[in-house]
Amino acid sequence: MTPKSAVLFARSKKLHVNGVSHNIRFFSPYPFVTKSAKGKYLVDVDSNKYVDFWMGHWSLILGHAAKQVLAKTKEQLGRGWMYGTVNKNTVELSEKIQSVVPVAEKIRYASTGTEATMYAVRLARAVTKKKIIAKIDGGWHGYTTDLLKTVNWPFTQTESAGLTDEEHIISIPYNNLEESIEILKSVKNDLAGVIIEPILGGAGCIPATKDYLVGIQEFVKKKNGLFMLDEIVTGFRFRNGCLYNTMGLDPDIVTLGKIVGGGFPIGVICGRDEIMDHANTQSHQRKNRAYIGGGTFSANPMTMIAGAATLDILKNARTYSKIKKLGDTTRKKITKAFDGQVIVTGKDSLFMTHFVKNEITEINNAQDVAKCDSTRLQRFHFEMMVEDGIFFLPGKLGAFSDAHSEADVKTLVDAAERFSENK
Amino acid sequence: MTPKSAVLFARSKKLHVNGVSHNIRFFSPYPFVTKSAKGKYLVDVDSNKYVDFWMGHWSLILGHAAKQVLAKTKEQLGRGWMYGTVNKNTVELSEKIQSVVPVAEKIRYASTGTEATMYAVRLARAVTKKKIIAKIDGGWHGYTTDLLKTVNWPFTQTESAGLTDEEHIISIPYNNLEESIEILKSVKNDLAGVIIEPILGGAGCIPATKDYLVGIQEFVKKKNGLFMLDEIVTGFRFRNGCLYNTMGLDPDIVTLGKIVGGGFPIGVICGRDEIMDHANTQSHQRKNRAYIGGGTFSANPMTMIAGAATLDILKNARTYSKIKKLGDTTRKKITKAFDGQVIVTGKDSLFMTHFVKNEITEINNAQDVAKCDSTRLQRFHFEMMVEDGIFFLPGKLGAFSDAHSEADVKTLVDAAERFSENK
Repeated sequence: MTPKSAVLFARSKKLHVNGVSHNIRFFSPYPFVTKSAKGKYLVDVDSNKYVDFWMGHWSLILGHAAKQVLAKTKEQLGRGWMYGTVNKNTVELSEKIQSVVPVAEKIRYASTGTEATMYAVRLARAVTKKKIIAKIDGGWHGYTTDLLKTVNWPFTQTESAGLTDEEHIISIPYNNLEESIEILKSVKNDLAGVIIEPILGGAGCIPATKDYLVGIQEFVKKKNGLFMLDEIVTGFRFRNGCLYNTMGLDPDIVTLGKIVGGGFPIGVICGRDEIMDHANTQSHQRKNRAYIGGGTFSANPMTMIAGAATLDILKNARTYSKIKKLGDTTRKKITKAFDGQVIVTGKDSLFMTHFVKNEITEINNAQDVAKCDSTRLQRFHFEMMVEDGIFFLPGKLGAFSDAHSEADVKTLVDAAERFSENK
Repeated sequence: MTPKSAVLFARSKKLHVNGVSHNIRFFSPYPFVTKSAKGKYLVDVDSNKYVDFWMGHWSLILGHAAKQVLAKTKEQLGRGWMYGTVNKNTVELSEKIQSVVPVAEKIRYASTGTEATMYAVRLARAVTKKKIIAKIDGGWHGYTTDLLKTVNWPFTQTESAGLTDEEHIISIPYNNLEESIEILKSVKNDLAGVIIEPILGGAGCIPATKDYLVGIQEFVKKKNGLFMLDEIVTGFRFRNGCLYNTMGLDPDIVTLGKIVGGGFPIGVICGRDEIMDHANTQSHQRKNRAYIGGGTFSANPMTMIAGAATLDILKNARTYSKIKKLGDTTRKKITKAFDGQVIVTGKDSLFMTHFVKNEITEINNAQDVAKCDSTRLQRFHFEMMVEDGIFFLPGKLGAFSDAHSEADVKTLVDAAERFSENK
């Protein structure tokens, strides 16, 4: 099916470590090589079409090459794609974000989520003059040196050689308030902040309970640390705004990315005025100031206009109600198709199938996910790629976009029924 | 001249820390707000035109919205801008880089220079199992936590609050081999590597001497550390390839960015096979492996095609000979116009004017630059912006692009003569 991909990937392996520029993009025997994408489809160099549930690392909520974003970005290309100066597009995107994300009293753009969380951590330490940052077992905030710990099972080994300062990061178990508080208490007076994804993304698509987040927030604030939410995946995924303010939360910093850039490179640090002011060169001397990016490509006019065009469409709740319904139906029907063999986690348009084993009956955190049968999930995803032209990055969660339809749910459920019967 | 910019920047200040997303983009009383860019021009929202020497943080060697890059990126938009999968465009760009950058036996793409240098440092530590990284006084490698030290005068204070691990970074004086070696010797057996810009960029546009780089390389390699060159500014700026191989150097890792992305977000880690293999998930277990990005937007098809289109044009040496001549003439004539008041540093298309004081007669490093009159330089740049429609980011070095011409040199030199007479 994929002879041209085979040849091109062989070339790619001569050029790139593991043949890829992101470890998770490799899968055996070799990943297909993409030629183009449109709407719900990825098309490979052999002209195979795949209904895409990976959707650009879940950044394309409107589907690939969505026409309104395409029109705006095409126009923008003619006006230049890289100014390196303050521009109008930035003001327009920021006003859209600020109007629906209350914590965004001040905004700073970076070009990736990795940068956004790195700057969030630096700000938290600068504001509090403390050092320890707590994260979640299985929490993923990008490759930043400051948060590269307890990402993968067993959540106790180092994630990488070449790190020199893991001691200032500690880790707490998701959705387990009592144990988490015990660990946070052990930090004594050096807790600069906690950073949490309100839905654990890469580690299993698991929503946090409201009680958990409220409890952590309360504890951290009492200790004068910052409560930070990483909404890079969840921001503008479920509603025109963030998830946190539907849960009665009051974070100090929220990071955004993915959807708010319309598929162009972006990372965003949003924070309350008094927090963000610690990055202000006019009000703070160097030694008290958090020196944060920015960077060469920050707030470039392409990303800004693509983000603004995307948020314009998302003001209309129609997209959200549509993709919520697709996700809800999918979770229900896949659960039924596998008749007790799986738990399908997620919320609204995000979903992930877990093949249970080791007597798992609930999935509340990354430890539960680690006990499931990830090999079987990868086989399920791989079989759908080959048999049904459905693409999940094998083993990863899926996302509906506005380009999907009920027909895609049916194909997915049919595939699940077949896989369930045959294995 | 700029009433609309004044209004928009007032809005920007309500939205963003310092009104900007990169500290250096602010200048008093307020920066103009860009509406569009084409060729050598930036155009602000009041329709003032500026001949741009900032050129997107020096990333646009062909000028703004260069037509060949515009054509390719417009086509690509229709095929999608964010695949999140292995794609053909990446293979094509990497083959172009590899064919002229010998150290690029393996390549990994990130989305910013900050990320590229962060991963280079992590790799160096993983490969050597050592911890200390040496950088240059005044060296700028982006905002990464791992290199945020000794960037600004006096090169001894912390650069930011909120850093927790500055002790593993040491700093050496540029172009002073003897003192540098003394400092490196003091590290004993824990030197993981040295990272150097072959032309000190942000800190004053100062070429390193060949003797200095050769001497540092020899020492570091003898100590089994890695010799790393940051060619984010210099790569493909002077020739179709890097600067290092014109100087007889043999680095272990080279970082690229800016020009190789054609103005779209990019950072690149290039290294010899045996070095880059330490990031390989198949040959190395987690605890011995450098876990490096990547990231969501790495190797996205827009950046890849813009980079490839740019390098295609740069294969023809015509651009380089043209912009070298413009730069050489500018350095000579500005020096003459200021009659002993300035030293103009740089190489080929990069140049920077330093107003000498404190008996400075040569500029060899960031300490020399710090002794010059930076206020006068900012006034010179600001006056040209207002009087002559010439834009330098005030206080920063300038870059010629293929869109500039000899007429721009004349405007610049006329402005220098006027400024020289009046002040």
